[in-house]
Amino acid sequence: MANITKKVSWSSRGDESGSPWEGTPLLNGSEQPSVSRQLSGGRSIFQIGRLSTVDLEDEITAEEDSRGRPKEIPHNEKLLSLKYESLDYDNIENQLFLEEERRMSFGGFRCLEISRWVVCGLIGFLTGLVACCIDIVVEEMAGLKYKVIKENIVKSTEAGGLSISLILWAVLNCAFVMVGAIMVACFEPIAGGSGIPQIKCYLNGVKIPRVVRLKTLVVKVLGVMCSVVGGLAVGKEGPMIHSGAVIAAGVSQGRSTSLKRDFKMFEYFRRDTEKRDFVSAGAAAGVSAAFGAPVGGVLFSLEEGASFWNQMLTWRIFFASMISTFTLNFFLSIYHHKPGDLSNPGLINFGRFESEIMSYNLYEIPLFIAMGALGGFLGALFNVLNYWLTIFRIRYVHRPFLQVIEAMLVAAVTVAVSFTMIYFSTDCQPLGPEHSEEYPLQLFCADGEYNSMAKIFFNTPERSVRSLFHSQPGTYNPLTLGLFTLTYFLLACWTYGLSVSAGVFIPSLLIGAAWGRLCGILLASITSSGSIWADPGKYALIGAAAQLGGIVRMTLSLTVIMVEATGNVTYGLPIMLVLMTAKIVGDYFQEGLYDIHIKLQSVPFLHWEAPGTSHWLTAREVMSSPVTCLNRIEKVGTIVDILSDTSTNHNGFPVVVKVSHNNEPAKLCGLILRSQLIVLLKHKVFVELARSRLNQRKLQLKDFRDAYPRFPPIQSIHVSQDERECMMDLTEFMNPTPYTVPLDTSLPRVFKLFRALGLRHLVVADDENRVVGLVTRKDLARYHLGKHGLEELHLAQT
Amino acid sequence: MANITKKVSWSSRGDESGSPWEGTPLLNGSEQPSVSRQLSGGRSIFQIGRLSTVDLEDEITAEEDSRGRPKEIPHNEKLLSLKYESLDYDNIENQLFLEEERRMSFGGFRCLEISRWVVCGLIGFLTGLVACCIDIVVEEMAGLKYKVIKENIVKSTEAGGLSISLILWAVLNCAFVMVGAIMVACFEPIAGGSGIPQIKCYLNGVKIPRVVRLKTLVVKVLGVMCSVVGGLAVGKEGPMIHSGAVIAAGVSQGRSTSLKRDFKMFEYFRRDTEKRDFVSAGAAAGVSAAFGAPVGGVLFSLEEGASFWNQMLTWRIFFASMISTFTLNFFLSIYHHKPGDLSNPGLINFGRFESEIMSYNLYEIPLFIAMGALGGFLGALFNVLNYWLTIFRIRYVHRPFLQVIEAMLVAAVTVAVSFTMIYFSTDCQPLGPEHSEEYPLQLFCADGEYNSMAKIFFNTPERSVRSLFHSQPGTYNPLTLGLFTLTYFLLACWTYGLSVSAGVFIPSLLIGAAWGRLCGILLASITSSGSIWADPGKYALIGAAAQLGGIVRMTLSLTVIMVEATGNVTYGLPIMLVLMTAKIVGDYFQEGLYDIHIKLQSVPFLHWEAPGTSHWLTAREVMSSPVTCLNRIEKVGTIVDILSDTSTNHNGFPVVVKVSHNNEPAKLCGLILRSQLIVLLKHKVFVELARSRLNQRKLQLKDFRDAYPRFPPIQSIHVSQDERECMMDLTEFMNPTPYTVPLDTSLPRVFKLFRALGLRHLVVADDENRVVGLVTRKDLARYHLGKHGLEELHLAQT
Repeated sequence: MANITKKVSWSSRGDESGSPWEGTPLLNGSEQPSVSRQLSGGRSIFQIGRLSTVDLEDEITAEEDSRGRPKEIPHNEKLLSLKYESLDYDNIENQLFLEEERRMSFGGFRCLEISRWVVCGLIGFLTGLVACCIDIVVEEMAGLKYKVIKENIVKSTEAGGLSISLILWAVLNCAFVMVGAIMVACFEPIAGGSGIPQIKCYLNGVKIPRVVRLKTLVVKVLGVMCSVVGGLAVGKEGPMIHSGAVIAAGVSQGRSTSLKRDFKMFEYFRRDTEKRDFVSAGAAAGVSAAFGAPVGGVLFSLEEGASFWNQMLTWRIFFASMISTFTLNFFLSIYHHKPGDLSNPGLINFGRFESEIMSYNLYEIPLFIAMGALGGFLGALFNVLNYWLTIFRIRYVHRPFLQVIEAMLVAAVTVAVSFTMIYFSTDCQPLGPEHSEEYPLQLFCADGEYNSMAKIFFNTPERSVRSLFHSQPGTYNPLTLGLFTLTYFLLACWTYGLSVSAGVFIPSLLIGAAWGRLCGILLASITSSGSIWADPGKYALIGAAAQLGGIVRMTLSLTVIMVEATGNVTYGLPIMLVLMTAKIVGDYFQEGLYDIHIKLQSVPFLHWEAPGTSHWLTAREVMSSPVTCLNRIEKVGTIVDILSDTSTNHNGFPVVVKVSHNNEPAKLCGLILRSQLIVLLKHKVFVELARSRLNQRKLQLKDFRDAYPRFPPIQSIHVSQDERECMMDLTEFMNPTPYTVPLDTSLPRVFKLFRALGLRHLVVADDENRVVGLVTRKDLARYHLGKHGLEELHLAQT
Repeated sequence: MANITKKVSWSSRGDESGSPWEGTPLLNGSEQPSVSRQLSGGRSIFQIGRLSTVDLEDEITAEEDSRGRPKEIPHNEKLLSLKYESLDYDNIENQLFLEEERRMSFGGFRCLEISRWVVCGLIGFLTGLVACCIDIVVEEMAGLKYKVIKENIVKSTEAGGLSISLILWAVLNCAFVMVGAIMVACFEPIAGGSGIPQIKCYLNGVKIPRVVRLKTLVVKVLGVMCSVVGGLAVGKEGPMIHSGAVIAAGVSQGRSTSLKRDFKMFEYFRRDTEKRDFVSAGAAAGVSAAFGAPVGGVLFSLEEGASFWNQMLTWRIFFASMISTFTLNFFLSIYHHKPGDLSNPGLINFGRFESEIMSYNLYEIPLFIAMGALGGFLGALFNVLNYWLTIFRIRYVHRPFLQVIEAMLVAAVTVAVSFTMIYFSTDCQPLGPEHSEEYPLQLFCADGEYNSMAKIFFNTPERSVRSLFHSQPGTYNPLTLGLFTLTYFLLACWTYGLSVSAGVFIPSLLIGAAWGRLCGILLASITSSGSIWADPGKYALIGAAAQLGGIVRMTLSLTVIMVEATGNVTYGLPIMLVLMTAKIVGDYFQEGLYDIHIKLQSVPFLHWEAPGTSHWLTAREVMSSPVTCLNRIEKVGTIVDILSDTSTNHNGFPVVVKVSHNNEPAKLCGLILRSQLIVLLKHKVFVELARSRLNQRKLQLKDFRDAYPRFPPIQSIHVSQDERECMMDLTEFMNPTPYTVPLDTSLPRVFKLFRALGLRHLVVADDENRVVGLVTRKDLARYHLGKHGLEELHLAQT
C-alpha cells in the first residue's frame, strides 16, 4: 500500500531519547517522547492563546479538520492520530457522584429508568419521522424529475433531438448534486459519506469531533435528499443510521448547544456513559428505519458498539428500533393512502419473497457459496479501487471547490453513461399487463414495449433493486445485466467518498442483484430442466447479499437485516453462508470499506480482542511513562501549567499521595480528568478561597454536567498570578478507585479489561501500588496483526 | 412468601464472633465465620476420607443432591447456598500458559480458530440430529398411541363401554410417564424439568453439578420422549436447549469422562473459559432446533449468558444455530419424503402467517397491550401457584418413589380431565373437505362432523397450538375454548416441576392461544362489522405470546423466537409490545418461573447490574476477610491442611510475599486455585524432590487439562509425613496478575468488574497492595433489591 505521508510521526524521534524501560526489538515506538508524560515543572510561563489540539476544543480542531485537513494530516493506515480522544464509558465515581447516588431513593432510580425509556421512545419516534421525511421528499422530487425528463424524451424520440433530453437530465442532476455537495463541503464535511464509519468509531469509544451535532444532522438529511434525487449511485440508508445517532445524542441531553436552548431535562444523562448508550439506541433506530429491521438494528449496535452487553440496555435499544419502524410505517401508510396499515417495512423494501415459489434446495447451497466467493472478490476489488481513489482525493481534491466540481462531474458522467447505455440498448420487453413499471421508456422499442436497460438505469436505485428481485424471468436479457453491472460497479466505486451525504448499501445491493440475476439466467440456460432454476430473483437476492457482504464485511447484523428486509426467514441459512464466504474471501484481499476509511483517518480503533500473538507483550512495554501525576492537594500554578502544555495534552492524571521531585513513583490514590480540572479552575475551587468566602456555594455535580460536553479550553480561563499560588484539593472530585493493573500483566489481559469496561485511562502500578505508567486507547490500538505478524503503528500528533 | 426452612444459615452465628471490620446495620451477614478465611494452622492432623462439599468432587455432592436433597437443603429464596461454585471465565495467565501462548505461532492461532468453528459446526449438527430423533420418535409413537385409542373409541362409541377406552388411554399414558419419571427420579434428577434454569445458571457462571454430563443428556432425551408421548401438558422445546448445551460441553472437550474415552482432540479447550463459550453455542443451537429460530437462539444465549459480547464468538454461535436448524430441516425433509426441501422450520412450527389476510391495524394496538397485561397477570398467577406447589414438593414429595407416583397421578388426571371434557362437549364441527384434522374423533357428533374439544385435547400440544392459530373462524366455540383454558392452565401448572423431563414453552403457548382465540371470537361477536376482526388466529398468536411472556419473562430473545417461529416479520411490533406489557405486569406480582426455581435452589445468580441503591456499600463491607493466603514458597503440610479444612472449602488463595503469623495483611503477588494445588500435590511438585530427581518431567499445562474438570478431592491424595515437610514453589503456577480493587470501591463498581470479566475471585487490596479481603460470587449475589429496599440473603452451607 502506498505511503503518501510526510513523516510527521513522532516515532522517528524515538531512537534519540533514552528510555528507562527496556526496549524490545519491535517496540521502537513505545517509549518515545510523543507519549511520555513529564511533569512540565520547568515551563512555568502561562501560555494564553496557543493553539492546542485537545478534544476539549473540538470547535477549533474541527475547523482545522474541514479547512486544512488534507495538507497536514498524514493519511496513512500505518499511523495513529493523537487528535482523537476517547469517550469515558467508565463512571467517574467520585465523592460528589457517590453522594448523589446515595441520596437517591429507590423511587428516584425508577424515575430515571422510566425517563430512559421515554428518551428511547422519543429517539425512535424522531428517527422514524426523519426517515419518513427523507423518503417522501425523495419520492416526490425524483418522481417529478423523472416525469419531466420522460416527457421530454418521449417528445424528442418522435421529434428528434435526444441530445436536448440528455442535457436536461444532466443539468437537473448536476444542480441537485451541486447543492448537496456545497452543503457538505462548505458547511459540515463530517456529514459526507454514509456516516457509518464515524458512528462505528463513536460506539467504539472514540470521540469524533462534531459527529453528533445538530448542524451535522441538518446537512446530512438535506444532503442525502439532494444526492439521491441527483441520480448518483448512492443510497439513503447509511445516512439514516448517522441521523439516528445524532438525534439520540441530542434528545438524550435535553438541550441543544447549537441552538443555545437548555430544557433542564435529562441532566442526569449528561455524561459519556449514558450518552453512548443512547447513541447506540439511535443507531439501531436508524438501521431499523432504513431497512425495516428492528432486530437487525439492535444487532448492528451491539456488533459495532456495546462491549458490555446489558439486558435492560438491549431491551431499550430494541424498543427504540421498534418505535422507529412503527413511526415510519404509520406515516408512510398515511402517505400511501392506506392509513393504519402497519405492515409496511422500512425505507428500502425488498418486496415479499414467497417461499412457495422461491424455495431452495440442498444442491443449490454450493452454488450460493460460489456466489459468496465471487461477491467477496468483487467486494475486495471495489474496496481496493476505492482505497486508491481515496488516497488520490486526499492528495489532490481537498478544497471545497474542487470537491463540489468532482461531485458534479460524477453526476454528469453518471447521466451520460446511463443515457448511452439506454440509447444503445436493444433489449425491448413487452409492457406488463398491470403497468407495474414506474417510468417505462419506450425509446426505439415497438409500441407496447419498453427499454429494459432504462428500467434499471432510469429509476431510483431502490426501485431497481426491487425490480431485479421480483421481475418475471425473461425481463432482462443477460447482455443488459452484464453491461449494467460493469458500469454501475465503476460508478458506485467512484461515487463513494465524494463530498456528498450518501450510503453504499443500495449501490452494493444493486450491483450484486444485477450479477446475481445474470448468474440465475445463465444457470437456467445451461440446465435443461429449467424448473428449479426458473426464478432468477432468488439468485439476484443471493448476489446482492454477496456483493454487500464483500464490501462492508458485516456479519451477524447484516444477515438479520437482509432476512428482515426480505420478510422471509427461510433465506437465513443461504444468506449467512454467502455472507460468511464473502467475508472470508474478501478479507484475504483487503479489509472492509468502513475499516479502510477508519484506518485512513488514523483513528485509534479498538478491535474485539488483542492480536493473537501479543501474549509476550506486557503492561510494562505497552504503557506510557513516566506519568504526569498530581498531588492530592496541588498548587494551582502547577495544574495550569500542566494543562497548558500543548506538547503533551494529557486528559487524565493519576492523583498520588506525594510527588517527589526526582520523578520517583508515588502511591496512587485517585484519577482526575482534564475536564474536571478545567471546571474546578473555572469555578476557582481553591482551598484559600473556600476559607475566605465561607458562604460560597459548594461545587456540585450539576456544574460538571452543565459544562459537558464542550468544556472550555484552558486558554479561556484566566488565572491571576496570585491565584497561581493557591492550592486545590482534588480529594472530592477525583475518582478514588481507578482500575489498576500490575506491571507484568500481559497485553491481552490489559486489553480485555480496557475493552470490557470501556476505560479511557488504566493505571499501571507496581507491587507497592505506586504509579509507574498509564495505558490509554492509543497504547493498545497501536498493536495490530499485519501480514508479517505483530506490527506497531506510529503515533502522529495530527 | 413462606419461610419453610430450618435455619441452617451460618448467619445466625454471625453475632457471636467478633469481627475486625465495622458492621453496618444491614450487613449482619457479611462478616461471619461462614465466609471467613483463616489459616487453619491449628489443625495439623491430616484428615483422610472426610466428606466435604467442595465442587471438586461433584460426584459426591451430586449423590447427596439426588438422594438427600429434600431433607437437608433449606429451600428458601432468602438463602444463598454455598455448595455452588463459580466457573472461571477469567483465564489463569500463569507462566505455563503464557509460555504456551508465546510459543504458539500465528498459524497456531489460526488452527485454533478453525477448530473452534469445526466444534461449533459439530455442535450444531449433533443438536439438530438429536432434535430430529426426538421429533420423529414422538411423532411415530404418539401417532401409534392416538391411532390405537381412536380405534378403540370409535368401536366403543358404537358398541358402548367408553370407560374401557378411558382406561386404555390412561394406562398407556401412565406407562409412558412412569418410564420417564423413573429415569429422572432414580438416575439423574438434574435432567428433570426444562433444564433452562440450570443452563441459565451455567451461562451465568455457576457450576451446577452434573448438568452437562452425558448421562444427563441420555435421560433428558429419553425422558422428554416419554413425557410428551405420555400426554402430559408439556413441550419438548425446553429440554432441547439443555440437550444442546450438554452436547456442546461434550464435543468441545474431545473426550467423555463417563465413557472413559479421550480422543486427544481439542485439549486447548479444556478450561472453563472456552467450555462456557461452547455451551453458549450449544444452548443457541438448541433454541434454534426447537423453534427454527437461529437468531433467537443467539439472542437467548447472549441474554442469558455472555456478559462480554465478542463479535467472533457471536458469529460462531450463530453458525452453530444455523447448522442446527439446517440439519433438522434436512433430516425432517427426508422423513417427510420431500428430501432436500429445506424450508421446514424447527420442532415447533407455528405455520405460515400470511400477512395479507392477517394484517393488523393501529387501533388494534391497545387491544394487544390489554391482552399483554392479561397475559402478565395470568402468568404471574401460574408462577405463584407453581411456587407454592414447588414448596410443597420440596417438603413432602422428595423420595423418588413418591415422585414417580405423583407423575403417574398427573398423567392419569390429565387423561381423565381430557376425556371428561371431550365426553361432555357438544361442540360439533363439520369435517373439513381436505381432512386436515389429524385424529378427528366423531363420538356423539353427527356423521361428517367431529368433536371440537377433542381436536385440542386429543392431540400433541404442538398440533393443538397450530390448529388454534390457523383454523378457520368458527372452528371452536367460545365455551370449548374457555373450558380448555381453565383446565389446561391448572394441568400445566401442576405438571411443571414434576420429576419428568419437560418444557413449559408449549403448554404456555397453548393456554395463551386458547384464551387469545377466545378474545378474538368475542371481539368479532361484539363488533358489527366483523371484517377486520374476522380472523381469531391473530388473537391466538398474541395471546400465546402474552401468556408465554407472562410466565417466563424473557424479552428480546423471546420476541425474535416468536417472530422467527411465525416466519413473519410483520408481527414484530405487536409481539414486542405484548411481551413488554406482560413482563411489566407480571413482575409487579411475582418473578419469572425460571427465576423462581433458581431462587428456590438458592443459587448465587448474578444479575446484570448491582441493585440501584447499593452505592453506599463498598468493597470493605462486601468482601470476606480475613483471607487465607499462601506464601509464594509454601510448606506442603500447610497447603494440605488448608485444602482439607472442610469448614471453609475455599477455592482460591491469594499468594503473598510473606505471611506473618499475626494475621497481618501481606503484599499480593498472585492467585492460585484449589484445583491447581490439587494437581501440584498429586504430581508432587515439591522443591526438594525437584532437586533430588533432576530428570523428572516438568509439570505442563497438559497435566492440568487432563485433570479438568473433575479434579480429585484432596482426600484422595496421599501425602506422607515426610512430604508434609517439603516446600512447594507456586511462582510458576499462580496467576501473577489477579485483578484487584481498592477498599473503597463501591459495590456497583466491584460488581461491574466482576460481571464484565466473569471473575471468580477478586482480591481487595489496601493502598500498599496488601491483601485485605476477597470478593467472590456469593459476596455479590447476597445483595438484592427487595420490596423494602436493599436486602441481604443469608448464606447456607448446603
